[in-house]
This record gives sequence, C-alpha cells and structure tokens, in this order.
Amino acid sequence: MLVQPLEWSNGKLRVLDQTKLPHRKVWLDFSDCRGVATAIKEMRVRGAPAIGVAAAYGIALGAMAIAGRNRAAFLRELDFVCDEMAAARPTAVNLSRSAARMRAVGLSSGGPEDIKKALVAEAEKIHREEREATRKLSLLGAGLLPNSFTVLTHCNTGALATTGYGTAFGVIAAAHEQNKKVRVFATETRPYLQGARLTAWELKEAGVPCVLITDSMAGYFMSRGEVDCVIVGADRIASNGDVANKVGTYTLAVLATENGIPFYVAAPTSSVDMSIGSGKEITIEQRDSREVTHCQGRRIAPRGVEAANPAFDITAHIYVSAIITERGIVREPYEVKLKKLLEEG
Amino acid sequence: MLVQPLEWSNGKLRVLDQTKLPHRKVWLDFSDCRGVATAIKEMRVRGAPAIGVAAAYGIALGAMAIAGRNRAAFLRELDFVCDEMAAARPTAVNLSRSAARMRAVGLSSGGPEDIKKALVAEAEKIHREEREATRKLSLLGAGLLPNSFTVLTHCNTGALATTGYGTAFGVIAAAHEQNKKVRVFATETRPYLQGARLTAWELKEAGVPCVLITDSMAGYFMSRGEVDCVIVGADRIASNGDVANKVGTYTLAVLATENGIPFYVAAPTSSVDMSIGSGKEITIEQRDSREVTHCQGRRIAPRGVEAANPAFDITAHIYVSAIITERGIVREPYEVKLKKLLEEG
Repeated sequence: MLVQPLEWSNGKLRVLDQTKLPHRKVWLDFSDCRGVATAIKEMRVRGAPAIGVAAAYGIALGAMAIAGRNRAAFLRELDFVCDEMAAARPTAVNLSRSAARMRAVGLSSGGPEDIKKALVAEAEKIHREEREATRKLSLLGAGLLPNSFTVLTHCNTGALATTGYGTAFGVIAAAHEQNKKVRVFATETRPYLQGARLTAWELKEAGVPCVLITDSMAGYFMSRGEVDCVIVGADRIASNGDVANKVGTYTLAVLATENGIPFYVAAPTSSVDMSIGSGKEITIEQRDSREVTHCQGRRIAPRGVEAANPAFDITAHIYVSAIITERGIVREPYEVKLKKLLEEG
Repeated sequence: MLVQPLEWSNGKLRVLDQTKLPHRKVWLDFSDCRGVATAIKEMRVRGAPAIGVAAAYGIALGAMAIAGRNRAAFLRELDFVCDEMAAARPTAVNLSRSAARMRAVGLSSGGPEDIKKALVAEAEKIHREEREATRKLSLLGAGLLPNSFTVLTHCNTGALATTGYGTAFGVIAAAHEQNKKVRVFATETRPYLQGARLTAWELKEAGVPCVLITDSMAGYFMSRGEVDCVIVGADRIASNGDVANKVGTYTLAVLATENGIPFYVAAPTSSVDMSIGSGKEITIEQRDSREVTHCQGRRIAPRGVEAANPAFDITAHIYVSAIITERGIVREPYEVKLKKLLEEG
C-alpha cells in the first residue's frame, strides 16, 4: 500500500504535508476545522477525492467543537462549518459533495451528541467509499489497456490525491500489477510540480518505469508515436462529460486527439456533478501568482512581472475517449450514459 | 536598445551569461574558440541567430590562434575550428551556416594573416546582417497585426536571442512602438525558463504589458478566446516550411489551429535550410536530464527518477499561418514560396 495522505485516529486528523514531498515527510495534526480548511487551501492535502475526505473529517472536527445541547443552534453552527469547508477550494466537486453529505447526516440524526458520532461515522464512510471506488475503477480501467503500452499522465492521481489506490495512477498501477508491460511519461505539472514531486515518487515506489518530462514535451513524444494513451484524473465532471482537471489537461486532450491517441479520464462518481450542464458552469480556481513567478519558493521571474495562475482547465467531452468510474466505463453520448450509470448505482 | 547578448571589441568576445539573468548581469570574456563553443553548449549565449554570430566570432578567435605561415596547413586547422564550432549544438542551422561562411572566406583569401583579418570582417558582417534582418522582419511582421491584440509567445526571441532586435519578440516590440495596443502572454518555457527569466524581463524593459504563464496554461487562455495570435521564433526551417523551435512550440501550434488562432513564425532567412526536405531531417538536441529533474539548479524530482530532455520539437508546416522573414512574409505553399524568396534575395 502506498503512503496515504491522511489518517484519522483518536479524534484527530493527521495530514501528510504534500508541499514538502518528496524531500521530507512531515505529518501535521489537526483537531480543528479551520486548520483542515487552511491545509486544503495551501494544498498540503490535494487531489479531488482526498480533499473530499479531508473536508468530511474537518467538518466532524468542527462539529465536535460546537458547545451546547440545543439541536437547532447546533445545526446552524454546523451549517457554517460545512460552508467554510466547501469554500476552501472551488473547482473539485468533492468538497461540496462531502459538505452536503455531512449536512444531511446532521439533519437526520438526533441531538448534538448523536449527530457528532454520526458525523464521524459518515466521514469514515466517505473515506472507505473513496478507497473502494478507486480500487474498483483502477481494475476496470486496467482492462482497457493492452498488454504492453506507454501511457502519458498529468499531475498526481495516486494514493496521495485520493486516499486510496489512485485514479489515473490506479489504472496504471493495476495494469502493472496484472503484469502488463507499462511505461509512463509523467509531466512535471508546473507550477506546483505534482508530477515531478509526487507522481514520479509514487511510480518509483510502485516499481513502474517512468520518464519525467516538462509539460511542454508531451506533444513532442505524442507526435513521434511514442505514446499509446493518455490517462488523467478529474476534479469535476459535468453531466455532458466535460472535465475540469489540472491546468494543462485540455492541452493534452487536444494533442491526443490530433495524434489519434485515446484520452481517458479516470475518476470516482463522487467527482461527477450532474447538476451542471457543461464545463462552462465550473468555477476555475485562480491561485496566487507567486506560484508561477517562483519555483519551489525561489523567484525565477524578475520582480514586478505579472503572472496568471488558473489551477484547472476544462476539457470538452468531444476530446474524451472514455470516462472510467467505479461503476463502469462510459463513452459518448456522456449525457445519457452518465445519467444511466448513476441511476443504476 | 535592449541589452545585447555579446560584444566584439579589441579582439575579444564578451558574452552576457544568460544562465544568470535576470538576477545577475555577468559578462564573460573569451579570447579562444573552445571557450565560445562551451558557452554555446552551456547556453550562456543561446537563440539561433545569436549563437550563429557567437560562432562566427569564435571561429575568428580560433583562426587568430593558429600559428605558422603555410596556407594549406592553416586552412586544415581552420577546418577543425569550424567543425568544432558547428557541432556545439545540432538543431539551429545558424551554427553550421556561420561555419560554412567562415570556411568560404578562408578559401577565398590570401595568406594566413589576410585570412585572419577577413574572418574577423566576416564575423562582423554576419553580426550586422543579423541585426538588420531582425529589424526588417520585425517591421514587416508588425504590419500583420491589428491595432489592438493579445499575442502569446514562447521561449525567448528578443535581443538576447538574436544580437539585434528580436524575431517574434521584435515583431511584438515593433507593433508596440507603432502605438498598437499590445498585451503578451509569455510562457515560462521549462526547463530552462527562457520565458520567465528573459522574455518577461525584456518585455518589462521595453514597457510592453506582459502576463507570465506556465507552459501548460497556454491552452486555457486560447480556449477562452483570450489570445489573438501566437508568434514564435525558429531554430531551423526546412524547405517545406516545417519549423524546429523550442520544445513546446508544436503544442502551441496545434492549440492555435484547434482554436482558429493564427500561428506565426518569425525568423531571419539565416534560419532557413533549403537543403532539407522536411522537419524529419532535423536533429533534435537531447540535453542533460538534470535540467528537468532540477529547477534553477535545485532538485525537484526524487533521486533516481529518469527524465527526458529534448530541447526542440518540429511543427509541421500545416500548422503555420505565415513565416515572417526580413525578405518578406511567406505563406503556403512554403516549398515554392521560400525558394522564390531566397532566389530573389
């Protein structure tokens, strides 16, 4: 089992600080809701499924700190806690989904003390479900892949991003476990370098051959016929199959399509948002420009230079060959197929 | 006039060390050929036109060090010098073109002392020609652009890359000088960060509004309709219009085409290589993987991770809207038009 991004024990949430990896393993202990929200904002824990789980535990911590025995007053405060956690980052749907589930548990349980217990149980359930979902989707996805292939992936979608087995990473690791001959091109994923720091590290731990490249080199290798497929994760999938994922994903999808390479998205159904019609409705988080003018905390651009830092982009469904979920693999027309998949579940 | 990458004075070549920019301005003095070749290899001076000029001066320095009065022996040694300089980096045609011109001067001049003088004069002529060519192509290119536009550019193509006015950068700067309303997205251009370190700096010095982005963000801004055109330079242009340029260029060309955005290549005719039929014949330099596993000398990937580092890629001519040269602007069919352009010159 790969290193997990968080642990819940004795009423505390331990978070592995991913900003320090792979150079140092620093665990942070949280017993309050706000600390967890800040850790999510600062990307100490990141990846759509992982922040969904962290948020659920964060809300449970927030609930534990609410004093008083009045149910209505308790639920009002719980609402604030859920709102704060859902707002930590805007793009991944997993945060607001966890908050909605925790809110519903609050409404359906008895007095404050019962609710507190039920919230912890629900957070643990979300955690367990994510672990199981990534395992299932990884095995399903591995079935799509030939016996020998080179895959290109972007950002980090392993255990660190998901609390479980991984999404795109999980599919790749499952194929490797099935003794398929796998080789991976991992993009470094500027500005945060999740590929260089986290994916390259997790692949190395898993014993999967990996070649690290800069984001700008993906096209070079695709155009030379050296890439058989692209697999990425997702932060939110709209009902029409449009995908919000780490900035640079859209570019890889266009390049893959141009070169006749399948482009797969692997994500648990917890990242599917049937309430929105298309990717246009997804808010793209704009992060601090310092992440672009600097690399690993060191200035690279001259002082006074303006920088933009959209953390995600939208890949229109027309570029997506298939979406791999724990409930099945979906292809066009996504609108119909995703609806059917979620209703059947 | 923007900071120039090299100066020839008193029989010495001064090179501004571009690996140290923008944080420090360090000038290196060379009085030998090998030092110049090493500075080119280590990218202390870079950019196709600039290394063509540096190589010419380097060959002149190499010739000055050849002892003896025997013409045949002198020419044999000069040949070695030219070979060494041409081999410093393989992709830009400007190196081998300069070497060929210097070799021809050697053959057409008298005794060793005459040849030495003629070689210095030829290097100065190449330098002057590059300066003039970039000025001319910049003015021609600026004429292509509307009165208000946002342009995306890649890598560094300013004075530092060309010894003159710049290629893609020159076109942008000329439009700005003509009081066109210009806004630039500059890609940081990993691994060497020419965009973040050099282009952002030169644009700031020139007073042109600039937004720095990571390489993976170009698609985001193009897909949102925020980019009116893309302009890049070239390291070598094949007779069919295929373009070798900094890795990532192919990706930008595919993205521009997909989004209906004109994709322009600006380069002096010294970068056109009519001896090759297509981009497939261009050798792509593979650089040290340490440039990818590290950023600005600091390790980012875990130890033991393999990395690839192709420095250039090939953009097929089908993605190129126009090639802007000092002799005119060329469009499809490039094979015919480039031939005509060069013959007319």
